[in-house]
Amino acid sequence: MSRTVIHGGLVITASDEIHADVLIEGGRIAALAAHDTDAAESWSADRRIDATGKYVIPGGVDAHTHMEMPFGGTYAADTFETGTRAAAWGGTTTIVDFAIQSVGRAVREGLDAWYAKADGNCAIDYAFHMILSDVNESSLKEMDLLVSEGVTSFKLFMAYPGVFYSDDGQILRAMQRASHNGGLIMMHAENGIAIDVLVEQALAEGRTDPRYHGDVRKVALEAEATHRAIQLARVAGSPLYVVHVSADEAVAEVAAARHKGLPVFGETCPQYLFLSTDNLAEPDFEGAKYVCSTPLRPKEHQEALWRGLRNNELQVVSTDHCPFCFSGQKEMGRGDFSKIPNGMPGVENRMDLLHQAVVDGHLSRRRWIEIACASPARMFGLYPKKGTIAPGADADVVIYDPAAEQTISAETHHMNVDYSAYEGKRITGQVETVLSRGEVVIDGRKFTGRAGHGMYTPRATCQYLD
Amino acid sequence: MSRTVIHGGLVITASDEIHADVLIEGGRIAALAAHDTDAAESWSADRRIDATGKYVIPGGVDAHTHMEMPFGGTYAADTFETGTRAAAWGGTTTIVDFAIQSVGRAVREGLDAWYAKADGNCAIDYAFHMILSDVNESSLKEMDLLVSEGVTSFKLFMAYPGVFYSDDGQILRAMQRASHNGGLIMMHAENGIAIDVLVEQALAEGRTDPRYHGDVRKVALEAEATHRAIQLARVAGSPLYVVHVSADEAVAEVAAARHKGLPVFGETCPQYLFLSTDNLAEPDFEGAKYVCSTPLRPKEHQEALWRGLRNNELQVVSTDHCPFCFSGQKEMGRGDFSKIPNGMPGVENRMDLLHQAVVDGHLSRRRWIEIACASPARMFGLYPKKGTIAPGADADVVIYDPAAEQTISAETHHMNVDYSAYEGKRITGQVETVLSRGEVVIDGRKFTGRAGHGMYTPRATCQYLD
Amino acid sequence: MSRTVIHGGLVITASDEIHADVLIEGGRIAALAAHDTDAAESWSADRRIDATGKYVIPGGVDAHTHMEMPFGGTYAADTFETGTRAAAWGGTTTIVDFAIQSVGRAVREGLDAWYAKADGNCAIDYAFHMILSDVNESSLKEMDLLVSEGVTSFKLFMAYPGVFYSDDGQILRAMQRASHNGGLIMMHAENGIAIDVLVEQALAEGRTDPRYHGDVRKVALEAEATHRAIQLARVAGSPLYVVHVSADEAVAEVAAARHKGLPVFGETCPQYLFLSTDNLAEPDFEGAKYVCSTPLRPKEHQEALWRGLRNNELQVVSTDHCPFCFSGQKEMGRGDFSKIPNGMPGVENRMDLLHQAVVDGHLSRRRWIEIACASPARMFGLYPKKGTIAPGADADVVIYDPAAEQTISAETHHMNVDYSAYEGKRITGQVETVLSRGEVVIDGRKFTGRAGHGMYTPRATCQYLD
Amino acid sequence: MSRTVIHGGLVITASDEIHADVLIEGGRIAALAAHDTDAAESWSADRRIDATGKYVIPGGVDAHTHMEMPFGGTYAADTFETGTRAAAWGGTTTIVDFAIQSVGRAVREGLDAWYAKADGNCAIDYAFHMILSDVNESSLKEMDLLVSEGVTSFKLFMAYPGVFYSDDGQILRAMQRASHNGGLIMMHAENGIAIDVLVEQALAEGRTDPRYHGDVRKVALEAEATHRAIQLARVAGSPLYVVHVSADEAVAEVAAARHKGLPVFGETCPQYLFLSTDNLAEPDFEGAKYVCSTPLRPKEHQEALWRGLRNNELQVVSTDHCPFCFSGQKEMGRGDFSKIPNGMPGVENRMDLLHQAVVDGHLSRRRWIEIACASPARMFGLYPKKGTIAPGADADVVIYDPAAEQTISAETHHMNVDYSAYEGKRITGQVETVLSRGEVVIDGRKFTGRAGHGMYTPRATCQYLD
Repeated sequence: MSRTVIHGGLVITASDEIHADVLIEGGRIAALAAHDTDAAESWSADRRIDATGKYVIPGGVDAHTHMEMPFGGTYAADTFETGTRAAAWGGTTTIVDFAIQSVGRAVREGLDAWYAKADGNCAIDYAFHMILSDVNESSLKEMDLLVSEGVTSFKLFMAYPGVFYSDDGQILRAMQRASHNGGLIMMHAENGIAIDVLVEQALAEGRTDPRYHGDVRKVALEAEATHRAIQLARVAGSPLYVVHVSADEAVAEVAAARHKGLPVFGETCPQYLFLSTDNLAEPDFEGAKYVCSTPLRPKEHQEALWRGLRNNELQVVSTDHCPFCFSGQKEMGRGDFSKIPNGMPGVENRMDLLHQAVVDGHLSRRRWIEIACASPARMFGLYPKKGTIAPGADADVVIYDPAAEQTISAETHHMNVDYSAYEGKRITGQVETVLSRGEVVIDGRKFTGRAGHGMYTPRATCQYLD
Repeated sequence: MSRTVIHGGLVITASDEIHADVLIEGGRIAALAAHDTDAAESWSADRRIDATGKYVIPGGVDAHTHMEMPFGGTYAADTFETGTRAAAWGGTTTIVDFAIQSVGRAVREGLDAWYAKADGNCAIDYAFHMILSDVNESSLKEMDLLVSEGVTSFKLFMAYPGVFYSDDGQILRAMQRASHNGGLIMMHAENGIAIDVLVEQALAEGRTDPRYHGDVRKVALEAEATHRAIQLARVAGSPLYVVHVSADEAVAEVAAARHKGLPVFGETCPQYLFLSTDNLAEPDFEGAKYVCSTPLRPKEHQEALWRGLRNNELQVVSTDHCPFCFSGQKEMGRGDFSKIPNGMPGVENRMDLLHQAVVDGHLSRRRWIEIACASPARMFGLYPKKGTIAPGADADVVIYDPAAEQTISAETHHMNVDYSAYEGKRITGQVETVLSRGEVVIDGRKFTGRAGHGMYTPRATCQYLD
Repeated sequence: MSRTVIHGGLVITASDEIHADVLIEGGRIAALAAHDTDAAESWSADRRIDATGKYVIPGGVDAHTHMEMPFGGTYAADTFETGTRAAAWGGTTTIVDFAIQSVGRAVREGLDAWYAKADGNCAIDYAFHMILSDVNESSLKEMDLLVSEGVTSFKLFMAYPGVFYSDDGQILRAMQRASHNGGLIMMHAENGIAIDVLVEQALAEGRTDPRYHGDVRKVALEAEATHRAIQLARVAGSPLYVVHVSADEAVAEVAAARHKGLPVFGETCPQYLFLSTDNLAEPDFEGAKYVCSTPLRPKEHQEALWRGLRNNELQVVSTDHCPFCFSGQKEMGRGDFSKIPNGMPGVENRMDLLHQAVVDGHLSRRRWIEIACASPARMFGLYPKKGTIAPGADADVVIYDPAAEQTISAETHHMNVDYSAYEGKRITGQVETVLSRGEVVIDGRKFTGRAGHGMYTPRATCQYLD
Repeated sequence: MSRTVIHGGLVITASDEIHADVLIEGGRIAALAAHDTDAAESWSADRRIDATGKYVIPGGVDAHTHMEMPFGGTYAADTFETGTRAAAWGGTTTIVDFAIQSVGRAVREGLDAWYAKADGNCAIDYAFHMILSDVNESSLKEMDLLVSEGVTSFKLFMAYPGVFYSDDGQILRAMQRASHNGGLIMMHAENGIAIDVLVEQALAEGRTDPRYHGDVRKVALEAEATHRAIQLARVAGSPLYVVHVSADEAVAEVAAARHKGLPVFGETCPQYLFLSTDNLAEPDFEGAKYVCSTPLRPKEHQEALWRGLRNNELQVVSTDHCPFCFSGQKEMGRGDFSKIPNGMPGVENRMDLLHQAVVDGHLSRRRWIEIACASPARMFGLYPKKGTIAPGADADVVIYDPAAEQTISAETHHMNVDYSAYEGKRITGQVETVLSRGEVVIDGRKFTGRAGHGMYTPRATCQYLD
């Protein structure tokens, strides 16, 4: 069994900052020892990585990606191969992607399709959530099976009628089932029925520019759906995880539920923390680059999101990575914003953007690791393998240089998409070296990994409340 | 340098549960290694402690004790010697006690008196907060000096006019000073001016039994003072730590402030979580045993406290240990509840009662460690020496048997007081062995420590928000 | 023109209590004059009614009745003739009943049917709201026409899928239309989609007793729908009137919206103020008598309703009068609570029950008149003809004996239904004499009116915010 | 007994708008009759006032004035003679002024002094509140006597230590007394102890300009005191009336208390609705004209006040009329804002400014009358004599021309002060004629009243909740 020692760095976990060397045996972390102790010095190793002046952090866990996702007649531009490689470049060592049940088809069929897409192609470990597009007696039964095989979370949509949409009865039934089988319901919380009326009216009135995407998907309709999902979960007695919370009023709904003691969780994404409707309003159809749902909000909402993250009203930052090229894909919506494929690239940028938030004073270092690594791992049953640096955990480790400076750009990024949502943004901090289960996949900013190294990782049920 | 290995246990910290052996070199934790790894097996040791089937947890940090405190013409019954010994028995390895400035005297004089009381007498490490009884230009200046020498938190009272009371102007000035020197203001939040009117009226009407202590110190007046302290801290731009929160409405005030992003913290105590006004109403003056301020509340308030602890609306559980014997001390208040010395014993029971809360489903194991060890250490600048098990930390370690059963009783406890507030209560879980800076002070339920082992520990400023 | 003088009474309006004689010329109030003034004494009259020791109050306005309503294969038992006569007996001189658009039919067709049912049959004046069961382009256009002819309020249902249910897109469109044409949207706010799941599950599990009607129609699902309706109205920029608010959490939603300045109104009904789930649980299927939707709630909710009425968080008390006989009608639901026709009798009892609330200390006398007469008149555009006693208003006047005692009973009531929901309840206060547009229709507890006296009264748009 | 008829106008009360003629016999309103009815036409009269096209409204009730008040070594510039004359010009026919107990003196002594000041000097009716500056056993007993002789409200100050200040114990005792004798506690809610620290600091740092008056009297400290007063009233079981609410957060405290069902009331003043900190910042010491306490707030607060008035979270608009001339009086504070006499003129402008609010869409006409006439009358026990136009009420009547245009100016106003806070402001609407108990005191904008016409009016206890 090969032994690697990472020495001289500052190990940061969700709760601790430790001046310690890390010993890896095979694919797992075997030990931590304080710098310069006899224990540390006694370690022999096949490989020694010098982390002096660097952070040694758990590999990121991105709990919300959509590789190769079909949407509106096209596909998200990153395959599992390109997307997970980009993730590794960005210090993320696990993704949880969304398998999709199609309307009228078995859940199993969708899941198997996603297993097949990912199999043998991933540079880092991966797992799956399941999108339920057709909640009925049969799919409810399948939920139990999926939980038992490690697909323990189920996404429902209150938007996109005719595609992913579930009505409140279907939602209630799925939540009831989850309350029995331990599954976690993830909710896209927007009132899509009402939004579609506003979309139709906007288009009829000639408001076709990407900026109107943000206009019609109103804050009040995100807050409404969030409140409704919470009430349905209360009735079902189930926990609830609200994905991509973007509006201040939605944060308030989650916070109010938590104050009452309800097991309600919230996720936000870097785009809501760093971008705004100003981007949607960029001229020459450039706003299309920023079309995703929930939409970007006016800048004033950002402070509520940061505050929610600090207060643990929001627990997780994921990317909702779902890239579409500007050329040929985003452009499908010229003249009709509703035809712009919804989604943005980001899997490579998350750890850096959140470190920038540390530099900017929004988050502490420990909280950075908590929201990006530990909490997603615990939320989705990947703990203690993923999300921390502790003896026994998988050796998914990032050597992070907190002082390096970089500029985000499509020219240098590794995602398979022709633009960056953060083009030109200056960042302090950079991933230097990344290990996935003990193997170096990024080595001093060279990719040394390979498609197929990444393994499917079945998940336990939600551990966040344990 | 002596080496100790604790093997086979489950190490629990605020964020992790690790099946790991722990290596101690001298007084500090040198390394953690997963059970049965080469790393773990290679360790030689002078002493090996078998923790198989046990928890290995950080020693408790009790951030609120009053050893030998003068009050109402008598003294709290535990000396630093007896009190810290009892703390060790209960798995607590650090206390932060309150030095007291007297009205009309220098802060320094009070602090020096407390240094002298504790010096050479403690079984475990200790530090001090400072009670400011006389906020004026001179004592404000002394605050800066204390912060620089490791006394970084200052308690003020909105109750006890003529003794500890500060008016709102004094409070504002002290908060302003703290906002500049990094000190943390701790607040006894009860409207003592109004309460004293109700006390006078109760006594005049013959309502002299201990139960009226709970009656006059109204929930509304704790909530009021909590709200006022928060508003004053807002004006001063300072953080605020509210001690011994006991009422649901006070939790709500702290929660509302935190939701707004204010740096407001709350502490509660085991007595508010496990006891109630039912105890204050015990016949034959037995209610006097439970007289403390803030007072015990009706049972219905307990759920709000547990919820607050789970939600991180409250961050710390301390004891407010301030024991007075029933005979001779509590009895001073027969016929006049206002003459009952305020305070209860508890330093020995905290870790066990909170483990019981884990057994009862109120808290997760990690949250137990967080509120009892990690958060108090971080809140009061003792981190990373105290509050966690990680390489580099002080080797303050408890081997805790989660399956042992015990019954709390004054006959078996080690506090110097003639009653237990929890007499007869059955508890699952028990401290087995305790190390303080690597020395075994409790060894399989035998005291092996000594007065004078415990060292004064200067503190950094609040690290909770780092 | 005939002249009537009512002398010696205490005139009570929403804002004033006046010791005054009332002069009626023709069908309208001509003048008020203080007792014993020259002005009063100078009045000649064809008829003098002695109201000494009595209240002289505006005739009640019941803004929510369902005469002859088809429901679940049967019809509400009161015709316009029997129902309006009973209303008169109870001191109500105006009803606003609900005309119904059927799914797939024109709005006009439904309205015409209701005009026909009422025409020539009513003892007191009447007007119509319109229930929209099928919101589409055509019915949206018809809304404008109805507003212009005096049908200015439109009820939508978030419950009863397949019958009255509108989805959120239909609701939004109707609200948008109302925001332009001045119409007021009235909402039955219960999440019927989710409730129907619970109904199905209850029946499948053999929970078929009437009590389960209250069980499945959960408080959380009324609160949810109320919140949703408010958010949709916010998006549409329209006012909103929530009918039959029964749950404390729903009151809180209305109150929160009003605190933010939104034009949101709430109605409750006597059954929610005086009855509870205890009634639904009456044995021998007697619970069926109390089946209505929203359902009766546990007693604890009543205080929130009373407080809401005092605070003007709720503005109106209507009856939702929709009587079904126990024999033959309610009994249709034996063995399946979902087949019990929803509705209760009450049009005759409202003024008395609310006077009892005055006696019980829940309401002031002026507030009694406000919620029962003035606010409904203003809310639904009937002011100043209805709802007050002032020169120029219609002479709809009740001489009310505040000291009379009565016992409510099906044996003595005048509604066409075989039970009373308040059987045996003792009431202080009783209607003595009632004038409708100056004609005495109840004369010292004798009915002197006639079918056909009552006239259709077109309404202006909502005057509540004028 | 002389008879006056006001014909052709629109009578507006808190709840009704009536096209009616008004008959006055002696000093009281005898009758109202609809225009052109036989009843109206039959009236003979000594005097007929044509109100065609005009509003006929109740005379205003200004429940907060300080005529001839000593403050900071000078006196408010309006005497009872000049001040009540100006009130009449402005359509106000009743004032409730504040008699003052001095520290160390009997309550009676203060009251008698104010009786003497007013006696024989007033143009309109007047009553007194009592300021308690020294709450002790003796003054508590005097409260009972005052209630019985018609002084039924008592103002306490949480500000101005050493002058008017009561501590929380004194406040609690006074509230307890009021809860027994029916008195209403009025509260100046600002944390004066904390504010005085900020004042001292501001002056020490050279921030002496009037703008700093607004700066140190912080929103958080008004909200704090408001919350505290509410909690104390809750403990005492007494109602509470908060005077001159100026901050959005203070409105929120009052609203939250009312939502809980507590009998808490709030008053605001025209200066908070129409002026702001922009005025306090006017150059050349002109800001001193706007120095009052609570202070003017940033403009953003105005919307919360208007909304509070519309929602009945605030019930009354009074003036806090307390004028000091700029020359010689306000100027005492050059170089030290704390020496500027606190107070502003306004008794003449209130009815007009609030009518302008009707024109601007902030209020309905009825709500204008409610907050300016009916609610203050009812709040302070002057009903039904004052505050409405109804048979039996005092004939305090204003003929108001809603279409007249005027410009507010010190050159044309009748208050005895050398500046107007609203100099140059254009107003639509103007008082034309004013009757006080049937006597015309303003006749087509000529003063026809006299000092001594106004009578002292003893008050009943609070009728607002009747």
